[in-house]
Amino acid sequence: MTAPVGEAMERQDLVWLDGILLDRPAARIDPADRGLLLGDGLFETVLVRMGQAEHLELHLQRLARSADLLGIPLPLDAPGIAVAVDDLLAALGLRQDLAALRITLTRGIGRRGLLPPDEPQSHLLMTAVPYHPPAQTALAASIVDIRRNEGSPLSRLKSLNYLDNVLALQQAVARGVDEGLMCNNAGAICCASRANFFIIRGRRLQTPPLSDGVLDGIQRHLVLQHAAAAGYEVFEKTLLPSDLPGIDEAFVTNSLMGLMPLSQIDDLALPESTRAQELRVLLENIVID
Amino acid sequence: MTAPVGEAMERQDLVWLDGILLDRPAARIDPADRGLLLGDGLFETVLVRMGQAEHLELHLQRLARSADLLGIPLPLDAPGIAVAVDDLLAALGLRQDLAALRITLTRGIGRRGLLPPDEPQSHLLMTAVPYHPPAQTALAASIVDIRRNEGSPLSRLKSLNYLDNVLALQQAVARGVDEGLMCNNAGAICCASRANFFIIRGRRLQTPPLSDGVLDGIQRHLVLQHAAAAGYEVFEKTLLPSDLPGIDEAFVTNSLMGLMPLSQIDDLALPESTRAQELRVLLENIVID
Repeated sequence: MTAPVGEAMERQDLVWLDGILLDRPAARIDPADRGLLLGDGLFETVLVRMGQAEHLELHLQRLARSADLLGIPLPLDAPGIAVAVDDLLAALGLRQDLAALRITLTRGIGRRGLLPPDEPQSHLLMTAVPYHPPAQTALAASIVDIRRNEGSPLSRLKSLNYLDNVLALQQAVARGVDEGLMCNNAGAICCASRANFFIIRGRRLQTPPLSDGVLDGIQRHLVLQHAAAAGYEVFEKTLLPSDLPGIDEAFVTNSLMGLMPLSQIDDLALPESTRAQELRVLLENIVID
Repeated sequence: MTAPVGEAMERQDLVWLDGILLDRPAARIDPADRGLLLGDGLFETVLVRMGQAEHLELHLQRLARSADLLGIPLPLDAPGIAVAVDDLLAALGLRQDLAALRITLTRGIGRRGLLPPDEPQSHLLMTAVPYHPPAQTALAASIVDIRRNEGSPLSRLKSLNYLDNVLALQQAVARGVDEGLMCNNAGAICCASRANFFIIRGRRLQTPPLSDGVLDGIQRHLVLQHAAAAGYEVFEKTLLPSDLPGIDEAFVTNSLMGLMPLSQIDDLALPESTRAQELRVLLENIVID
């Protein structure tokens, strides 16, 4: 059931679980794992291009930061996980294509109830599947009813508590659009169900601050860090739906799509994107790892 | 690995998974289950007394209602689940003791990403372990920093997104108390990390409305329904921390503890409970199923 590490076996359904490569049917999550029972865990979604996990170091830094905040021990350090990622990708034979890598950390099993065990035996799970980018060059979005919980630290982490995002995307799709923009309970726009959100006014970029209940996205971080190099002033500031009519362009970012312009937000049609495309190219050429 | 149904085997680690009784080590959750990956599922916690699951019908009604709202098919109807519960409890041999039964529903596996499959193959998992009620006759509580998301329907359901509650209880325990009271983002008190919350003023009972971000608790429902029979006027109304100094008593309710008085909320000492104890006895004697 285990696969030799490092061979390109082109096996679609291979998973990496706690150091072992397994066919998925042989990979077992314990029914008492708190990741399942309570959403007690974290994940990362990483773009793989030509067999290389992009910005993996930033993803692993975020995972370690979030795990530290929740008190979940990471079974491997960042270099150890990076080696495991290489093993998995090599075994899957995804070297020529785009792929989506998912790294999942759970706190493992515990006694009944909410309190975690004093010394959790956490689990690390990794999978990767071919990734097909959206066919569109811009997405249509709608502001949905599901709110972000700005009063929880989880709104800033990629925890396993992702059902609000699922509901937000379902509502958007039911309205015939591609993405749902989520507001917090104070009515401020935070992010999309699967992405961070930016607006462009002239040469000014604005995105909501993390404190509004915004996921601390890797691509968001890169835009904040690098937009100045493209001649943009970039700042984090609370953004209300009533601010939208005055914008020039808008875009969303996540690790798989990179930067994706929005063509509309509900009734607000946005012009064909020029500056967002320019930023997109900039972002795609950032090499950090 | 399967156990004959209906025999009291006293096997601690037996689980019921999709119609089969298994030793836990033989029970496998798929690493691609959306319950694990996205918190896409629901659960119920049910008190078992002398081998009987208390208020099981109400729990199964709530589970069905919530599953319907999320679009997760229930693999069995309520009578079918009730039979399965009996099988599990008989096999576990928990007939003489208090036990905590957990019923977990997940949406099952799906394609990568947030959107559920069109025809999900959901999974039903049940476990039960001996339950030991708190030794205290009253709990100390503190208002914690973690907020309820009043703007999400999940705040009213027992979904697998329970990490906010874990964080709330951890914070309470770190402060040396037994329970954490959670406010919503508007600052109104909603409920405790593991229970609903009531205050008593004279013969008036007050609990926050579900719309404030409150779990739709079974015991809460029973208090609302039956307190009038004990001479109480009971109403749902937003409750602010600033309302607390004027109260006579306070208590929390959940399916395992039933009704539990609070001895303090942060610096506010509450008198030894008399009316809460009276209500507790009332609640324990409600027979519905």
